[in-house]
Amino acid sequence: MLALVFDGSPVLRSDYPEPRCAKGEALIAVKVAGVCSTDLEILKGYMGFRGVMGHEFVGVMADGPKPWIGKRVVAEINCVCGRCDMCTRGLSNHCRSRGVLGIDGRDGAFAQYVAIPVRNLHEVPAGVSDEAAVFVEPLAAAFQIIRQIKCAGNDNVVVLGDGRLGQLIVRVLKLRVRRLLMVGRHAAKLEAAEKQGVQTILEADFVPSAQADVVIDATGSPGGLELAMKEVRPRGTIVLKSTTAAGAGGLDLAPLVINEVTVVGSRCGPFPDALRALLRREVDVSALISRRFPLSEAAAALEAARSSENIKVLIDVQ
Amino acid sequence: MLALVFDGSPVLRSDYPEPRCAKGEALIAVKVAGVCSTDLEILKGYMGFRGVMGHEFVGVMADGPKPWIGKRVVAEINCVCGRCDMCTRGLSNHCRSRGVLGIDGRDGAFAQYVAIPVRNLHEVPAGVSDEAAVFVEPLAAAFQIIRQIKCAGNDNVVVLGDGRLGQLIVRVLKLRVRRLLMVGRHAAKLEAAEKQGVQTILEADFVPSAQADVVIDATGSPGGLELAMKEVRPRGTIVLKSTTAAGAGGLDLAPLVINEVTVVGSRCGPFPDALRALLRREVDVSALISRRFPLSEAAAALEAARSSENIKVLIDVQ
Repeated sequence: MLALVFDGSPVLRSDYPEPRCAKGEALIAVKVAGVCSTDLEILKGYMGFRGVMGHEFVGVMADGPKPWIGKRVVAEINCVCGRCDMCTRGLSNHCRSRGVLGIDGRDGAFAQYVAIPVRNLHEVPAGVSDEAAVFVEPLAAAFQIIRQIKCAGNDNVVVLGDGRLGQLIVRVLKLRVRRLLMVGRHAAKLEAAEKQGVQTILEADFVPSAQADVVIDATGSPGGLELAMKEVRPRGTIVLKSTTAAGAGGLDLAPLVINEVTVVGSRCGPFPDALRALLRREVDVSALISRRFPLSEAAAALEAARSSENIKVLIDVQ
Repeated sequence: MLALVFDGSPVLRSDYPEPRCAKGEALIAVKVAGVCSTDLEILKGYMGFRGVMGHEFVGVMADGPKPWIGKRVVAEINCVCGRCDMCTRGLSNHCRSRGVLGIDGRDGAFAQYVAIPVRNLHEVPAGVSDEAAVFVEPLAAAFQIIRQIKCAGNDNVVVLGDGRLGQLIVRVLKLRVRRLLMVGRHAAKLEAAEKQGVQTILEADFVPSAQADVVIDATGSPGGLELAMKEVRPRGTIVLKSTTAAGAGGLDLAPLVINEVTVVGSRCGPFPDALRALLRREVDVSALISRRFPLSEAAAALEAARSSENIKVLIDVQ
């Protein structure tokens, strides 16, 4: 089959073997996939991943349990054992021996087919288009924030970063908090948030106030945490969202102690919440799609996703 | 008066002016003071502090409101405005314009007299000796941990660091959690905790398990957070206790995100809790006093506190 494989560099292969389903797994024919910043990190060596890239997708079940055949699905990316201490205490996203689709030890979705445990699947309602459903995985990651921390209606919440994830986060938060500000570096991206009724400011014009109750770092850069520490109020909360928090060189963490700040790491989130929000049109992702490429041009899709001009880049598989 | 003054280096002065009390302040004749790791950080330039050092002490009110004269007192170290947003929301330890005794903008307690707002004072009950009362400030900082996070009885709690603060933390926690482990670098200090019924292990023998529900970093070194990230379980909590978390060079914070860890910065704590624990003999600090020096030898006291052989070093003022 056709697949974009990372083996130190991204290579489009037409002869990649179709995945074989293990017990409890289904074969999904991928329809549309999305490029995530984590994919770009993988190109830099993140997680030492090797294999088919990609973890955001919508597809159709090609083989698996009969009632599911032909159904349109999205899939949670953590493939778990169900038996370890994390799984048994209900924290299976943190399974001690998990594989993570296209990120850690499991082939991903920039391919014609992907194998995935049936337990990971969520059927996509007819009212949600492929172009919306492909956002379910990152949108769930945005919903995870309000699962982990309380955002009261009157809280002063600041989102750092105007990229893919930041855009989804403000779309989720604007339903819940009245005082919401996005800080970013790209006028066009900030405009996309402004059109959703979100107040924004260019980082160059932003003077941190130490007043925010909650600061969410979705910058994908080590400087994000530093700015977050300046903007959060004493006893406030910083949510770390980007795994590129990696390598925060020489960062002075004393302000966390002095101001008794709480830092919450946040990763994958609840698919049902994301699907419901898309079905009810509570979250509008349509304006976030900047470019689309066929799978045969997946390498160009990665390149486009790296450009600061684009927000979401999609890969059309079939 | 006699005072140990930091002006880039610590200098004993016999001609330092006695403090003048502002409105609402009292003059305290210091009896005994304690040397804290923060004092040693100040010697390295922490907070850019200049003035009389020292913030842990017990004394007697020499001048101030009549009913208090002659009473034995300890004092909270944050001198606050009472009007800013932090003060009015009950977070006065984070007052926007606070002075902090011997740490930030206010003369401290390594002196014959110190001026302090009356609101900061707590009377020491007769049942608490001077040698115990001098531990109230750091013991309160240990109690702050259980104010900020929930430690359930069955939680697996690991304290990193066998120094002054680590010793107080395990003494507070052992009253509340059954599974408590102290990790340290000094056999003699670990023994002091063992004698209190706390399980300990030398850091050299310690293999992080990613199993701890709560890890408390009281190492006072940047490496503490790195070790804490290895020991904490996914969705667990790291408490940062030492302001020397400063300058964590090249630290990879991605594990916080991947494992959705919560990091809680923790500073000053509730004096009443500490006084009560000392009065009820729930916390035994007697074995922690390694050396005592007269104020005239305060510089030697600082030197002794720097030595890994000593736990708590006291300065006898009068």
